[in-house]
Amino acid sequence: MDTNTQISYQDKALELLKRDVEKIARLIKVQMENLTMPQCPLYEEVLDTQMFGLSREIDFAVKLGLLEKSEGRDMMSSLEKELSILHEIHTEK
Amino acid sequence: MDTNTQISYQDKALELLKRDVEKIARLIKVQMENLTMPQCPLYEEVLDTQMFGLSREIDFAVKLGLLEKSEGRDMMSSLEKELSILHEIHTEK
Repeated sequence: MDTNTQISYQDKALELLKRDVEKIARLIKVQMENLTMPQCPLYEEVLDTQMFGLSREIDFAVKLGLLEKSEGRDMMSSLEKELSILHEIHTEK
Repeated sequence: MDTNTQISYQDKALELLKRDVEKIARLIKVQMENLTMPQCPLYEEVLDTQMFGLSREIDFAVKLGLLEKSEGRDMMSSLEKELSILHEIHTEK
């Protein structure tokens, strides 16, 4: 087995997933900054959809053996933490 | 580059995607068979969600270089055809 090939697929997968994580994190940040604006339920739906899409990509990468299950869990939970802060602020309003 | 490693990732990716395609095809079939039952909008939402999830997995596999873009398009369009038949039957009812 060529370790380079394996690593390159793993690197690529990680890079793609991190890009998606950052995209969602940016969406959350924008939503936090706009909390004074009227609440937009569509935005929450967009975030939920993106989170679901990411979870499917992560599961896929894990099943392919390109990502550790724990790495995938860490990616999801970092975003879930930010999302729960966002929801808390929403509820307080 | 070890061709075996590459092929094994490609095979695995194809196998995982085909499994998801079959899962959605089965959902569509069940829905077709139950057309005499009261229409369940939730079912359509489930199908849409599954289609979205599959499209994300396919895009991911294409970006990784494990799947040809045309292969991914074929997978999606075969399901989309079945879905449009389902919607047509629904509309006729």
